This record gives sequence, structure tokens and C-alpha cells, in this order.
Amino acid sequence: MTMLDIGIVGGSGYTGCELMRLLLQHPEARVRIVTSRRLAGTPVTDTHKHLAGLIDLSFENPSPSEIADVCDLVFTAVPHSAAMDIVPALLEGGVRVVDLSADYRLPVQVFEATYGRAHTDPRDGGAVFGLPELHPESAGASLVANPGCYPTGAILSAAPLAKAGMIKYAIFDSKSGISGAGVDPSEMSHYPNLAENVRAYNVTTHRHLPEIVQELGLLEDALNHTNVFFTPHVVPVIRGILTTAHLILREGCEPNAILNLYKEFYGDKPFVRVREAGDGLPNLADVRGSNFCDIGLVCGENRVVVVSAIDNLVKGAAGQAIQNMNLMLGLPETRGLLIPPMSP
Amino acid sequence: MTMLDIGIVGGSGYTGCELMRLLLQHPEARVRIVTSRRLAGTPVTDTHKHLAGLIDLSFENPSPSEIADVCDLVFTAVPHSAAMDIVPALLEGGVRVVDLSADYRLPVQVFEATYGRAHTDPRDGGAVFGLPELHPESAGASLVANPGCYPTGAILSAAPLAKAGMIKYAIFDSKSGISGAGVDPSEMSHYPNLAENVRAYNVTTHRHLPEIVQELGLLEDALNHTNVFFTPHVVPVIRGILTTAHLILREGCEPNAILNLYKEFYGDKPFVRVREAGDGLPNLADVRGSNFCDIGLVCGENRVVVVSAIDNLVKGAAGQAIQNMNLMLGLPETRGLLIPPMSP
Amino acid sequence: MTMLDIGIVGGSGYTGCELMRLLLQHPEARVRIVTSRRLAGTPVTDTHKHLAGLIDLSFENPSPSEIADVCDLVFTAVPHSAAMDIVPALLEGGVRVVDLSADYRLPVQVFEATYGRAHTDPRDGGAVFGLPELHPESAGASLVANPGCYPTGAILSAAPLAKAGMIKYAIFDSKSGISGAGVDPSEMSHYPNLAENVRAYNVTTHRHLPEIVQELGLLEDALNHTNVFFTPHVVPVIRGILTTAHLILREGCEPNAILNLYKEFYGDKPFVRVREAGDGLPNLADVRGSNFCDIGLVCGENRVVVVSAIDNLVKGAAGQAIQNMNLMLGLPETRGLLIPPMSP
Amino acid sequence: MTMLDIGIVGGSGYTGCELMRLLLQHPEARVRIVTSRRLAGTPVTDTHKHLAGLIDLSFENPSPSEIADVCDLVFTAVPHSAAMDIVPALLEGGVRVVDLSADYRLPVQVFEATYGRAHTDPRDGGAVFGLPELHPESAGASLVANPGCYPTGAILSAAPLAKAGMIKYAIFDSKSGISGAGVDPSEMSHYPNLAENVRAYNVTTHRHLPEIVQELGLLEDALNHTNVFFTPHVVPVIRGILTTAHLILREGCEPNAILNLYKEFYGDKPFVRVREAGDGLPNLADVRGSNFCDIGLVCGENRVVVVSAIDNLVKGAAGQAIQNMNLMLGLPETRGLLIPPMSP
Repeated sequence: MTMLDIGIVGGSGYTGCELMRLLLQHPEARVRIVTSRRLAGTPVTDTHKHLAGLIDLSFENPSPSEIADVCDLVFTAVPHSAAMDIVPALLEGGVRVVDLSADYRLPVQVFEATYGRAHTDPRDGGAVFGLPELHPESAGASLVANPGCYPTGAILSAAPLAKAGMIKYAIFDSKSGISGAGVDPSEMSHYPNLAENVRAYNVTTHRHLPEIVQELGLLEDALNHTNVFFTPHVVPVIRGILTTAHLILREGCEPNAILNLYKEFYGDKPFVRVREAGDGLPNLADVRGSNFCDIGLVCGENRVVVVSAIDNLVKGAAGQAIQNMNLMLGLPETRGLLIPPMSP
Repeated sequence: MTMLDIGIVGGSGYTGCELMRLLLQHPEARVRIVTSRRLAGTPVTDTHKHLAGLIDLSFENPSPSEIADVCDLVFTAVPHSAAMDIVPALLEGGVRVVDLSADYRLPVQVFEATYGRAHTDPRDGGAVFGLPELHPESAGASLVANPGCYPTGAILSAAPLAKAGMIKYAIFDSKSGISGAGVDPSEMSHYPNLAENVRAYNVTTHRHLPEIVQELGLLEDALNHTNVFFTPHVVPVIRGILTTAHLILREGCEPNAILNLYKEFYGDKPFVRVREAGDGLPNLADVRGSNFCDIGLVCGENRVVVVSAIDNLVKGAAGQAIQNMNLMLGLPETRGLLIPPMSP
Repeated sequence: MTMLDIGIVGGSGYTGCELMRLLLQHPEARVRIVTSRRLAGTPVTDTHKHLAGLIDLSFENPSPSEIADVCDLVFTAVPHSAAMDIVPALLEGGVRVVDLSADYRLPVQVFEATYGRAHTDPRDGGAVFGLPELHPESAGASLVANPGCYPTGAILSAAPLAKAGMIKYAIFDSKSGISGAGVDPSEMSHYPNLAENVRAYNVTTHRHLPEIVQELGLLEDALNHTNVFFTPHVVPVIRGILTTAHLILREGCEPNAILNLYKEFYGDKPFVRVREAGDGLPNLADVRGSNFCDIGLVCGENRVVVVSAIDNLVKGAAGQAIQNMNLMLGLPETRGLLIPPMSP
Repeated sequence: MTMLDIGIVGGSGYTGCELMRLLLQHPEARVRIVTSRRLAGTPVTDTHKHLAGLIDLSFENPSPSEIADVCDLVFTAVPHSAAMDIVPALLEGGVRVVDLSADYRLPVQVFEATYGRAHTDPRDGGAVFGLPELHPESAGASLVANPGCYPTGAILSAAPLAKAGMIKYAIFDSKSGISGAGVDPSEMSHYPNLAENVRAYNVTTHRHLPEIVQELGLLEDALNHTNVFFTPHVVPVIRGILTTAHLILREGCEPNAILNLYKEFYGDKPFVRVREAGDGLPNLADVRGSNFCDIGLVCGENRVVVVSAIDNLVKGAAGQAIQNMNLMLGLPETRGLLIPPMSP
């Protein structure tokens, strides 16, 4: 079996580190290069001590073309606005790229309005929005924009009803673990501020909202920023996002029909597990450490409450990126990714 | 100063124990009787070890009339359906009662539909719904029905907009600490099941919903079970409920006007603290252990997201009960209750 | 009743803020001045939002003599090495001082060796080590050095056996909440680093060890750094220190005799609660938010395991400081301090 | 590649479930039978919902000989005293057994004194104590007694110094996640009782102590119950045991020599990672979900503080059992077990 050579641009943070954890378990891919400007020259395991004995690389700071020479595919796990500085050169070097930043998820003008800066590499339509359950065209792409963590869970919770044109209002109320905020300590991540607490933030204006609106709007024309709402919270949890989608419908609803809609929509999607009516609702423990998105739902008279659960660092970031990698490189979608969730 | 004599019926659980913690700090009330059938004869501090050295009573199992003879006011902190067995005799004995169960919060037929059993002490209109910010008539009452923990935070978050007749849909998404589920271990409260997790439950049918619908319906006629929704969650937290109220309005909204509506509505309410626009949103740490309900809000185009935070055992139970006690006994509403929140 | 006027030098951190929480509940003391160089001019409740509606002061930056003019007693809640710059001027101004830093707890040469800097205000014997259970001479003092949080729980767990001359080796293994590390975010306090984790640190050389050795050495001559060991850990907890004292004895031990030793030693100490044999061991919930130190013990053949529990911000800092204040100002030791623990 | 067929007797609890999680990732073993008397006939994933889509077995209740007919090796993951009822029949059936209960870890008389019941299958010397780092003779065994979770971390932390004959007193102070207490809710595991808390229990008499004494006594004759002490605690953590070994030495110690002792002792042990001096001490995050035991140490004048960290469900139970399985079946020790830790 030939091993595929993989590069990780930006390996000091949680996403880069999670890519390594997952790729170490992938039978056909191996990490060849991990970059970090700040840490170049130091062993990866000095920073990620949990990987001691498992990975024998040092951080490097090569040029994009040097990376492209060595790698079959590169993950760019850098902050938004930093990816657009490196992705063009990587693509020119002939390597495929999965970008985990926000830089290629939105049309340029939406990106610029949302992130408040000019885009230096406009290529509308040039990147696939890498939610494979909605965009199988990842398979042929050279550049895939990996979705945000919140949008992954939110979009998947509402997509079947959106496609059926049934949603009048969609209110996504998400509860996230703090690892989504990254490796650097902050007021928000300070243990006494988060433990025994819940915090709502950016309640009407989070930067992930445009991704949600964009994807649901593709499924149901009438959905836009006047009827799709998103409110994130952090809860005292390291990993995981539970999204409660309050979907107010255009008409009354029939529970069996709605559940079947979801089961059909996701019937051939290996990483979405739709719960049967008697099976309880999804929760974070059941997906922890895995690439699954669990979905469950309960119907009211004129609305549905859908609950989705993902691990924000896996299906919400590194795992989904590898799912895209598999598709881009012609591997089975699940190769190396059917890692069982860790519960308890 | 004459001390008022207080009885607690049902002193083995969290609510009874919290009543003791708070009354120990009340300058004009003292606990005279604490009942528990199961624990009668044993010192209260054998069960509530944290109160060692502070309270020198044993659990008793007296008759209602014996309690009424000794006490000026009695708190019934028993499960729903148990209160209706004892409250009539207490009232006949001439003692005032604050009932912390669900038995007297709803009209009889709503109670019976919600709790699935017959009511043996129907007295519609005979109990005041004890949310003092909306029902100052607690002051003259002999029986006050202390609201549920979820309804307290939910109703207070939406009342000003409901009174202004502006709400089209109200979706309450609540995140609660597990102490609300009581002192007995369960699957839900098992540490490995709750830590690092979030769980939605009873997402369309929680028993507290009728209280919310009832009180908002009193403020805005058009609000009922087709446009008032409530979905509770448990989060890995001991105390506190954060309610995110997604309020979709009949018309567009003007942020300053909305904030002023809240500030006027709660201007003379000592336990509701409305946050100014720049002050961040409420969170559980800022109310922990106290009787405050903190409220903050952010306006969107056609909706408002209101966040309220309470300590479920204080403003959501024992504290609010003492607030009602103060009013019923002619004391200042805040007497003994301005206990500072414990943060961090 | 005349109110005593209190100053807090250094009011932006957890200790200063906890002093306010507790003094708000003190019937004979009121906070008059709260200082912060950085925050001078801003309302205290902008920083400590949980105190909104309870305290109406702004941070100030007055000179020591200005503070001394207004106050009966001042708490210096500043980092070590900062207190020695302000305490002399406060004392010259005629005000009593409880210093919560490390500056006056140790003889000058021990301080300098431990903290690695010169002491600019040497006054050996001029400050009382403010552990009132061992040093009632706080009562007449003008300067009290409030002990460190770890030493408080460690010393109290071993003092009776030390006084009896029975200890051969004392190994203190402490588990602390993270609030002891202060209000500023750090690697250690970053939620993903602390939640679901335990970390040992400074396992043989923590700066609090000399305080423990000093106080136990006063009780049992033979105890010194060759047989008194201290290893701290942080656990995923906001408040509290549980210290497990592994005390290896010179001779075999008789359980009842040992327990009686503790009960007699602490018989008249209102804030130390010694557990009876059948009452289980202390834990953090039973002292949370309170000034109690709970102690329990189990005897082996030639050793005793003693467990003590305190709230590090109360008995380990602000509460003990107020206990010292009461003694210094001639008030009953417990005035305003019998605040019930908050459990759950 | 031939797949080895594996049976799990007792599959409803955490250990059985963790065996499945790990074996799903093992390239040469597959689970054929999972037993549960109570759940027989129901799909495994009804109970272990996180394994939905990954394992397609139902619980069964076969006889030992039926199990032996199908399987190459059986894990008995049942409570102590239950294993001795089934292991003899399994062995007679010709299948190899790794017993995860306490039944075969100790000499019969020690077992009976510790667990307070008669042993019905005495076979002293017939089972290998399955700590492969000390007992490579697992390799040829037909019955291996998998060690307790606490003994694994405690013994490994002290073994090199014990073998060198240097230990005068060994005090093991362990901090454990609550999953060690099993899947059933209890007072101890009730979230409000454990969160924000630390609890010491069985501080001088825990049932795991005899295993520790036994193994250290094999390495250093002079070690016995008068100088080997063990005190466990539960901390608010799901997984992991951090053991702080306070080792008082017979003589002074030289830090480099001690560290080298550990590095040599564990040089060829793939699952023990000894930290270099500058690398910080082990913690639970760095081993979470993995079979590693991380060890770090700091020397004092006449003592060493050693810190070991394991995942109690992996190296402390299911992982170590699979490590033994690999050895018993002639596979490389690390086959299928180099699963990277999950951090954060």
C-alpha cells in the first residue's frame, strides 16, 4: 500500500494537533510536514506531549512550494485571513488543499463584510464547501473549504426539512465546548469563569451565521437572515457542540413523516446517525472523539425540535477535513475515520 | 425584635436545605420545625453536614395542626401531589403557607392534564402565583404557590415585551444545573453521564411549560401553546439556570426602546438587575447563591435575544419563597435576602 | 451601633472581591475604600458584576495616609513584595493592618530565601502569624500576617499531633481549586488544560512549605524540612483545598485517643469542626463559601491520615482575615462570619 | 490475516464497553460474543449508543463451554467473586482467559481476608499477575489476572526504586476519576456531590492495597503493610488516575541517578513514558483514552515524589487486558494499542 504524504500548515493549535491524532490512525496517510513559524526546529512532542512516542517530527517553516513538493495534500489549519496568504502558492505547486480557516467558505463580498478585511485571493466557485453530506463534489476538488464547527452541526440538523421547503423560522441555539476557542488562555477559557457556568456570546451576529444561511438558502430559497437565527453559548465542556434547532414549520407536522425525511436524507451518509424515536436524543458523550454527527428530533404541533451532536474538533474540524481528504484522494469516505466515540 | 417562627415541611432535599441556609441569615425569622418522615428523630446536621454547628434541630414528623400551632409561616418543600395532602390542614390551622411544589400554580384542570392525577384540593384563585415581580398580591395572601425554577427565569425574560404586546413567537431554550433534579442519584445525575456533556430533555412537553404560557398569556392575550415554546437542557453545573429567550417580534425593533422597556418594567424590583448595553450578558456566576435574576438583551432586526440567569435553588426556589414570605408577613421584600452572589 | 470603616488595598482580584462579599454581610463593618491603581475611577461593580446593586463605590488610588485617615483597619490584598511597600506607611498612619500577602509571615531571611528578593521592611516579631486557632495574640496586634491558603489547611490538620510530639513524618498532599492562582488567565487555568485533569506542581519546593514547617516546628521541636513535606495539586474545582495529611507516628496509635486529642485541641475554636468517627470525612462542598475548616481522621497501625477541607478564598484568605479583624478590633471572633456553607 | 475471536463476559459496564471500543481498533481481533444475563437478546448498541453503526452484536447468555467453543480468548469483566464462578469452566473449555476482576490477583488467603468471602477456585500460582512491565510471563499463560486500576499506577510509579531496595516508606496518594466506580449511579457519583469537590475514601483500608504491597514486596523484601500506604480520592473527572507517590528513601538521593534508574527500568516498555527533568510532570490529559502510563519525578533531599498518570479504563483495565491478550496470543505487545491519547 502506498502511503499518502500529508502536510499540516499550522500545527501548534488544537486543530493541527487533532489532525495528527487522527492521521496517526489512518492506514493510508502519514504526516510528513508540520509547520509552525514560532516553534520551527522543536520536536512536535515538546508541544503536544500526549503524542510522545507516536510521532517523530519537528516543526518546520518551509515555503509553500517546498511543502507542495513533498505532499499529496495539505491541511491549512491557520487563523482566518492567514490561509489566503498561503493557499494560492500551495495550489500552484500542484498540491490539493483542505483549508480549515474561514477564508474560502463564503463568497468574497460576504467574507469581507463578515470578517472586516479585504480578500486577497478571490476565487468564487473555486472552492467546494466541504460538508460532504451536502457537497459530494468535494470528490473532484483541488481546494475544499472545511466548514466552521457550528455550521456543521446546525446545517445538518435542518437540511432535510430545508430541502423539503418546510421551514418558516430556524432558530439554532448551540452549546459548545471551549476547545473551539483555541489553545490560548483567555477570560472566557479561565476555569473559574467557565466552570459551573454558561455564557451566551455574539448572540445575533456570530461569524458562522452566514455559512448557515448560505447552505440552508441553497436548499430552501425562502431562508435568509430574516428567518434563520443562530445563538452560540459556551458550556463547561472541553469538546463537543450540541445544537438545538427550533424549527417552526410552514404547516403542521406528522412525526413519522419527518423522521423518515431525515432517515432517507442521511441513509447513505456513514457519519450521520439518525436516532429512532425511542432512542433518546443525541448528546456529546456519544460522539466524543469521533467523526459522527448524531441527530434526533421531536415534533410539536407546528414545529420540530432537532438536536444534533458533534465533536467540534473532529466532525467540526479535523475529522471532517480528513473525510474531505479521503474523497479528494479517491479513498473510501470512511477510511481511517471510523474511530469509536470515547464514552464515558 | 420578635422572631418569626418558621416551619419547613420536607427538609431532607435540596430545597428544604437551601431554605435553612437562607433563613439562618435572616434577621427576623428562625426555623422552628423541620419535618421528614423518613429521618424523624435524627439531627438535621446528620443529613446536611455542611450546617454542622449552625442549626441545632432534629427532623420531626408532627401533624399539620402541631406545625400550625408553633409557626407563623410554613414552607412546603415536598414533591408535587404531596403538598395538596397537607396544605389544607395547615391553612385551617391558621398558618400562612408558601408551597414550593407544583400543586397550586395552575388551574385544577391544567394541573390534572399536566401532572396526570386528580387534584384533591381544588381552590382556583385561592393561591397567588408567587412571582412577586408580576404578582405583588402575594403581600396579602395566606397561600402562595412558589413558581417553578424554569418559569421564573423564562417569564421574567419575556414579561416586558409580552406586556407591550410585541411577541409573535417566544422560544425559551434553558440550560440548567442538575441540582434542579434533586438529591437522589439518577442516570441523568451520574457524573460520567453529565460531565463534559449537555442533554436536552422533554424538549416540547416539559411540565413547566403551562406555567410559562399561563403567565405570558396574562400579559399578552395572543400568547398560547402555539407560539410559546420551551426546551430545557441540563449542563454540567450544580446550580443555576440560564435561559436564552428567542423572541420573534410582530414588528421591527429599536434597541434603546426595548432596553428602556425592561429597565422601566423592573425599575423598582430589587431582585431583577437589567444589564446596560455595554455590560455583557448575564451568566450563572454573577447570581450564584443569590436571589437575583440578571437580565440582558440584544436586538436583531425583527427579534430580540434575551438572556436571564438565576440560581435555581434561590430565585428559582427557596429564595423566592422567602421573598414571598417577607411580603406575606409584612416585612420589606429584601429582608435577609440581599446575600451577595458567590463569584468565583 | 458604630460601623467600623474598612479599607481594601488591592480590590481587583479574587481576594479583594471576596473581602467585599463577606464584609457586605458583616453587621459592624463597612467597606469605605477599595483601591486599584489600574482601575481607579471606575465603579467596583464594572469589574465585579456580581456585586451590582450591593456596593456603590469606585476604585480609588489614594496614598497610605489618606487611607489611614479614613479607616479603622485595612486589608492589603496585594501580591507578595508589594505589601512591604505600603504597610509601613499604613501603620505609621495609625491604622491596623491585616496583610494577605506573604510579606510578613516568615522571618526576613526565610522570606528572602523563599521569594528571592530583599525585604525592605524587616520587622521580625512585629507581625502576628494570623492563624487564630494557634495565635490568639492576634487580638492585640496592629499588624497581622494572614497565612497562606495551603498552610491554613495543612497546619490545622496536624497541629494537635504535633503539639503532642507524636509526628515522625508529615506528608501533606493538597488538592486545590484553581481560584488560588488568581484572576488572570494562564496555561494552568485554561479550561481544556484543567477540566478532567489533575496537576501536581512545585511538588517539593512550594513557597508555602516554610510556613508549614515554621508553625509545626513551634509545636514539635523535631519537625523541620527533613520530615515535613508538602506537595500541592490543582484539581478541576473553583474553590476549596482538601489536604490529606499522611502523618507517620513515632509510636503506635489508639484511635479514640487521637480523635480526643483533636476534639480537645479545637473544642473552643468556632471555625474548626472535627468530625466524629462515623461522620465521614470532610469534603469541599461542606465548607464552600464559609470560614469553616472541617477535619476528620482515620488511624492506621503506626500512622494517621487526617483530611482537612477549607474554602481557600474564605478560611484560606478573606474569611480568616476578617476573623483576625474581629479579634484585632475587639469583636467576637465569629461576628459576621457564621455564613452557612453553600451545598450543593 | 486470520482474525482472533474474542469473548467478553460482562459487557454492560464500563470495562466491557471499553474492551469493545479498543478491540474495534485492533487489526487482528474481533469481538464474537458479548454476554449479559440482564440484557441478553438486546442489541449491544441499545445500551452503548455511542457504538451505533460500529458493532452489530446482541448481548447473549451462553454457557462457558459455548463461549469456549467459539473464542480464542475471553475477557471476564465481572464483579469480584463472580469471576471464580465462570473462569474454571472457561479454562476447562480450552480458552485463554484474562480476568479483570479481583479474584485471581492475590493468594487465596489474602483474597479471602480482603474481600470477606471464601474463594471457590483456589489456584495459587495458577494465574499470572498481569502487569506486563513486571510480569512478562503473561506471554505463556492461560489465565492472567488483570491488576486493579490503582495498583497499576501505584506499582509502576515505585517499582524501579523498590527493585533498587531504596524505599523506606511509600505513601501513595491517588486521585481518580469516578468511572472507576462503575456505571451505576450512587451518592458518590451524583453530580452535585462530586463536581467542585474532592473526596477521600477508604483512606487506610482500600482493597487495592494488598496488590500494591504484594508487588512491591516482590521487588524489595522490606516493604510490607507497615511502610506501604495507599489513600485513594475521587476527583471531578470521568477518566484517569493520577498517583502521587511520596517515597521516603533509606538514604539521600541523586536526581540524575534516580531518573536514570527509571529510564533503564522502563527503557524497553512501550507503554511507560518516563519524562525528562525539564518536561513537566504527567497529567491525565496526556494519557486520556490511551494505554500509556506516564511517569515523572522530582527528588528532594531524602525522598522522591513520583507522579504517574494512567487512564483507569485503559491502562488501568481494558487496555492492559488487551496488552495481556497480545502477549498470550503471541502478538506484538503493542498490536492495536498504540491509540493516541485524546488531548484536549
